[in-house]
Formats: sequence, C-alpha cells, structure tokens
Amino acid sequence: MADAAAKERKILVAVDESEESSYALSWCIKNIITGNSNDTLILLYSIPPRAVYSTLDGTGEKDHPEGYLFSSDILATMERYSSEVAQCVMEKAKRACEALNGVKVETIVEHGDARDVICQAAEKLHVDMLVMGSHGYGVIKRAFLGSVSNHCAQNVKCPVLIVKKPKTEGRSK
Amino acid sequence: MADAAAKERKILVAVDESEESSYALSWCIKNIITGNSNDTLILLYSIPPRAVYSTLDGTGEKDHPEGYLFSSDILATMERYSSEVAQCVMEKAKRACEALNGVKVETIVEHGDARDVICQAAEKLHVDMLVMGSHGYGVIKRAFLGSVSNHCAQNVKCPVLIVKKPKTEGRSK
Repeated sequence: MADAAAKERKILVAVDESEESSYALSWCIKNIITGNSNDTLILLYSIPPRAVYSTLDGTGEKDHPEGYLFSSDILATMERYSSEVAQCVMEKAKRACEALNGVKVETIVEHGDARDVICQAAEKLHVDMLVMGSHGYGVIKRAFLGSVSNHCAQNVKCPVLIVKKPKTEGRSK
Repeated sequence: MADAAAKERKILVAVDESEESSYALSWCIKNIITGNSNDTLILLYSIPPRAVYSTLDGTGEKDHPEGYLFSSDILATMERYSSEVAQCVMEKAKRACEALNGVKVETIVEHGDARDVICQAAEKLHVDMLVMGSHGYGVIKRAFLGSVSNHCAQNVKCPVLIVKKPKTEGRSK
C-alpha cells in the first residue's frame, strides 16, 4: 500500500448552493483527498430544468396544468439568475479546493434534473467515486431533495460517499 | 494538506458473507486507506437475530405465527453455525487487511438486525466514516438486503460510503 497516496483517482463531487453540499466538499478535501496525490477532482453543478412555459411559445396555453406562464423577459432573467448561481457555486467550490496542491480541479455545469445529471456524469466520466451531500434535514427538504442522494446511491455504479452536515458543529473533529 | 495522510481516521466497515461486502472492504483498502496513515479500521459483523422459538420454551406454541418451531438441539446447532460464519467472515476480512502496515484493525461481532447494529456502532464509536457494500443485484436481494445500505445512509450521522461490486470485473481499475 506504499503507492496508495500516488494512486490516480477521479473523484466527482456534486455541488449545489446548499450548506450540506459545501460541507460535503470540505469533508472530502480534508478526509479523502491527499495533497500529494494525482487525484482529479471534478466539481459538477446541475442547473435545474425550468417547469415554465413562455407565453410567446405555442405550447403556452393559459390552462396548461404543468407550469406557470412567464413572459420571455422574466424567462431571460431567470435564466441569467440560474447561470449566476451556478457560477457563484463553482467559484466558492473552487476556492475550497485552492489548498490542494497537485490536485487537478475540473468544473462541469449541466442543465437538467440533478439526479439524471449526476448519474450520467458518473457513468460518462468513469469516475472512481461520487461524493455528495445529503439533504437530510426537514421533512419537506428530505421529501424533495433527499431523494437525490438516495437515487444516486442506488443508481450510480461507482462507490458513492454521502456526507451529512452535522447538526452541531462541535462534534468530534 | 501535507498532513492529510497522517490524519487519524476511524473507519467502520460493515462486513458480511457476501461478495459485495468483501469487494467493498477491498475497495476501501485500496482507495481510501493509506498504508502510512494512523487509520483505525473497525470491522463489524452482525449475527442476524433468529426468528425461531424453541419447543421447550414457554412461548413456543405450535400455532405461533411468527416463527418456526425447533428443538433446542437444532437451535444450538444453528447458533454454532452462526458463530462459525461470523468467525469465518472476520478471518477473511482480517486477511484482506494484512497488507496494511501501520493501520490498526479491530473487529466487533454483535447480535441483531444489521441495520440497527451498524447504525448503533457508528454512533457509539464516533467513527469518521462508515463503509459498506450495496446489495444491489436481484429483486429479492434488493428488497431485503439492499435496504440495509439505504437505511444506514439515511440514518447514520457520519459520512457513508456505499461500494457496489461491478458486474464486469474488467471495468476501468
């Protein structure tokens, strides 16, 4: 195992704007990644699909049951906002990786449902491990967001590390 | 991050007689544990509870709906068999850890439902990470055993690494 530290690993970390995700990345950096390794860290952010329809679009019927109606102006604003959030999350994630000497950091931003985006990326990039936060707090959050980590743990073929943010920061180390 | 390799980590690995579990342990050794680290690896095996009732026991009514009736001889044989399986699994797991210089290996055998045993041990021992295989293949196996990793991923507070055995061994590394 003397060469363990030098083993090349491709680690995919799913990032989003939540504190859980930011904690998962920090935990992974501190506990899994070693500074002198040949690891490649891939930060993945998925921009959620918009369940909205433009009024200028032919499908934008007033009584459309699946979405709200927005003008193209609002849509453009929302699109811009999504991109800004993505950029902001990525900048923060990259800053967290700055202390890692010798570790290659790559970033990927994809549009789509986080579950699909993460599973597809893990598969396509042949990563050695997927790291993600768990949105395990609160019934509503768990019902909607918690399922992302469950879904990935069940569907991704590579090892999946689910990191939970401790409720009390003072716990152990 | 220069001291990352020397960081003390307490890693709990849930082992059982399955190939998935043995693969998870090997993967963890090769990819997570570094030979020169101060890691403590805790191997945990849970002996499943027996849903059987002795005929000599007062509760052993013939029409008891929850279990089969066995004589005390058979019960003793089953108990011995369980212990032998536990010992055999632990010996195999310890052999897998032999190449790890400097890593302290501890073993724990507990009686009880794997889900409870694993969650309680992770909590009690204040481990930094729980590693376990995923019984993801086959509908029956998934329905019964797959839920162990799901349950632990949802209930254990520390980070949980779920390792799946690839269907084709020749995949990447």
